[in-house]
Amino acid sequence: MPDPTRVSFPLDESRIPRRWYNLVADLPSPPPPVLHPGTHRPVGPDDLAPLFPMSLIQQEVTTEREVEIPEPVRDIYRQWRPSPLRRARRLEQALGTPARIYYKYEGVSPAGSHKPNTAIPQAFYNREAGIRKITTETGAGQWGSSLSWAGAIFGIDIQVFMVRVSYDQKPYRRALMETWGGRCIPSPSRETAAGRAILDRDPNHPGSLGIAISEAVEVAASRDDTKYALGSVLNHVLMHQTVVGLEAMAQMESADDWPDVIVGCTGGGSNFAGIAFPFIGDALRGGRKVRVIAVEPAACPSLTRGRYAFDFGDTAHLTPLTKMHTLGSTFTPPGFHAGGLRYHGMAPLVSHAKELGLIEAVAYEQTRCFEAGVQFARAEGVVPAPEANHAVRGAIDEALRCREEGVSRAILFNLCGHGHFDMQAYADFLAGRLTDQSYDESELAMALAGLPSVAEPG
Amino acid sequence: MPDPTRVSFPLDESRIPRRWYNLVADLPSPPPPVLHPGTHRPVGPDDLAPLFPMSLIQQEVTTEREVEIPEPVRDIYRQWRPSPLRRARRLEQALGTPARIYYKYEGVSPAGSHKPNTAIPQAFYNREAGIRKITTETGAGQWGSSLSWAGAIFGIDIQVFMVRVSYDQKPYRRALMETWGGRCIPSPSRETAAGRAILDRDPNHPGSLGIAISEAVEVAASRDDTKYALGSVLNHVLMHQTVVGLEAMAQMESADDWPDVIVGCTGGGSNFAGIAFPFIGDALRGGRKVRVIAVEPAACPSLTRGRYAFDFGDTAHLTPLTKMHTLGSTFTPPGFHAGGLRYHGMAPLVSHAKELGLIEAVAYEQTRCFEAGVQFARAEGVVPAPEANHAVRGAIDEALRCREEGVSRAILFNLCGHGHFDMQAYADFLAGRLTDQSYDESELAMALAGLPSVAEPG
Repeated sequence: MPDPTRVSFPLDESRIPRRWYNLVADLPSPPPPVLHPGTHRPVGPDDLAPLFPMSLIQQEVTTEREVEIPEPVRDIYRQWRPSPLRRARRLEQALGTPARIYYKYEGVSPAGSHKPNTAIPQAFYNREAGIRKITTETGAGQWGSSLSWAGAIFGIDIQVFMVRVSYDQKPYRRALMETWGGRCIPSPSRETAAGRAILDRDPNHPGSLGIAISEAVEVAASRDDTKYALGSVLNHVLMHQTVVGLEAMAQMESADDWPDVIVGCTGGGSNFAGIAFPFIGDALRGGRKVRVIAVEPAACPSLTRGRYAFDFGDTAHLTPLTKMHTLGSTFTPPGFHAGGLRYHGMAPLVSHAKELGLIEAVAYEQTRCFEAGVQFARAEGVVPAPEANHAVRGAIDEALRCREEGVSRAILFNLCGHGHFDMQAYADFLAGRLTDQSYDESELAMALAGLPSVAEPG
Repeated sequence: MPDPTRVSFPLDESRIPRRWYNLVADLPSPPPPVLHPGTHRPVGPDDLAPLFPMSLIQQEVTTEREVEIPEPVRDIYRQWRPSPLRRARRLEQALGTPARIYYKYEGVSPAGSHKPNTAIPQAFYNREAGIRKITTETGAGQWGSSLSWAGAIFGIDIQVFMVRVSYDQKPYRRALMETWGGRCIPSPSRETAAGRAILDRDPNHPGSLGIAISEAVEVAASRDDTKYALGSVLNHVLMHQTVVGLEAMAQMESADDWPDVIVGCTGGGSNFAGIAFPFIGDALRGGRKVRVIAVEPAACPSLTRGRYAFDFGDTAHLTPLTKMHTLGSTFTPPGFHAGGLRYHGMAPLVSHAKELGLIEAVAYEQTRCFEAGVQFARAEGVVPAPEANHAVRGAIDEALRCREEGVSRAILFNLCGHGHFDMQAYADFLAGRLTDQSYDESELAMALAGLPSVAEPG
């Protein structure tokens, strides 16, 4: 029976999880293999070795249920974890809902988001492997800044290729990376063959995530002491984020409650998997059932409008092929504010869970998400990041459904980051300048038609 | 004996203080009276009634040691309090110091700073008194945004006069106020006689904190349903901030440790008083002695270069006279980045404590503070606000002294806010564009010469 007054459910640092959770171990069927882009045959660990240290490759393919979190990583986690889990009582009152709304808040990390949960272990394992430099790409800058901090801790140079249009528009994200000692390069750059080729054709090219990935991969692949890191999508990244859900389970227990519904926003899928996978696994092992809802932007709706197919992770087609819900690797989402959700594909493991019927998906326009974010901010104080506003919208709609049905359900959502770096989006919304954006249907059709033709293995 | 590994010392929400602490009760001599600006005689509660609700006026003058925190205020505090207290072990290692460095972190509040600690109760008491609108001024925007959130909670319209140059330069702070429903007006404005008079002379006047205060006070004094609120300096504001130090006492106990040295940055004095006063009071009542260091900007050094004298709180001379360390109410500090520390005077109670020898003061140039802030960020992750960098500098210098002397002392400082809204300052610092700024000595001399001539009452 939930305490009728409590708002927060703190955990002592001794309760930071000792092991990450791997959903693969509990799934009724394994996810499809990852294929070599040339041969279309399953890749082995050696194929990935130029880009990642072997310890992370092993985590990428492991079927073990739990992977031990190294003590040095837990040491760093302690600087902000366990993160708060709170009951949004003022929001419940404002909505007049009988629902019990809980949110896990990842905005208390130094970077203001969930990204350090995986940046720290990725830097740790690279350091263990003797790596001196990590390259990566970043769009809005949230991932690049988190990895920059992780690099500062473990003495690794971090080189971030930042999409040039974001580099120019978001000088504060760049300043954050540099404060933590990261090096931020506008992409396309003249530091790589891929970048030079593009600049030679168009010196004013605005860049894209796909190009930035190509540059980061090129640098990493060409040097023995340098590896590459990705902030979402991959299995090991999702697994690192399960500290979110594992803590939330302990906190829901201390609240004497359990979620009936879990809501998370999805871009690449990592914050969503972080909150949801431990609960899904618990249910698969015979625990309490839970509805799980992925909320994505209507302008980049991979789960609700994409095709479940093998596709490349980048536009330049350097990455392996993974089976996922995809809008096609040539699909370019419009420039809406939730930059962290602008990705053509969905994490293969999230996609597989969707196919297995373990999760639902819904897509929202950005203005409705900002409406929800402002309502949340006025009730609970925290101003959510534009990405997190999608989860807020989803949770509020579920709470309103409880009101309509006269049913009290426990709703848990992941508030994956604060919006203090995104106030321009709020300024635009409040001034009525924010509009819903849609992609070009014919462009989507073309991108889907361009999916690689892959003979299903097995 | 401190645990050799713990980093964080969380408190359950039941440990949020039930009473604020009032240092006045434990002082060996009472602070000087507040004087009427016209008669130079001590003001009574009725003199302040046009501007503040009587409950806050009573808190301003009370000599009781403890004032009960209303339950509705504690309810809101629970949305981010108790705030973290952490041991900065990675910073200790980076400094090679035997010192034990602890910091209380107020950046987890929805506003990213300590300001909601007093914004919430001020809005509460105004609401209790039937007030529908509160006016205030803001410089950098930290206070105005916190009060805007408090207004959203209690259904009070918040009208913030924001110094025009900041209004133009800091659109994100304005967006934050508006997200929380506050109304933000560039000052000087045409909404007040004071503003119109200035604009008639100079339509492009950049504004000043003194002018913004005049506008806010004019609106509040002219309407029965409207009061005025201040974010620092006054006794009741400092008292509300003592939740910081009271929690820190409980957290230091759970760490099996106690500070030998406490460091805080000082502008108006409220975050400093918040962390320090409960410890000072404990020592005055026979508890453990503690050195307390106030760190102020060298470009606005009221405690280290000001005169202890009766002065006005604003440049337009509408406020009562208080005895404080002041640079003179006409003194204009240069435009350094720690906007929250750009005030000509010091809280009367902090000034009195300095005269009684209960605290020390030191002044630092801003580049040395940003050096400390970057060092802290790379070690501990949190990027401090420019104001907080002054406290970081002071704490690091004390830790380095421990290294020189080969002595392990416990150093506690207040990290009063994060710097996510201030990344331009970091960008400037990292690019070498940040310079130390000094005031004009002759201007200071003139401002001090212009102090009002007051016959000491007694």
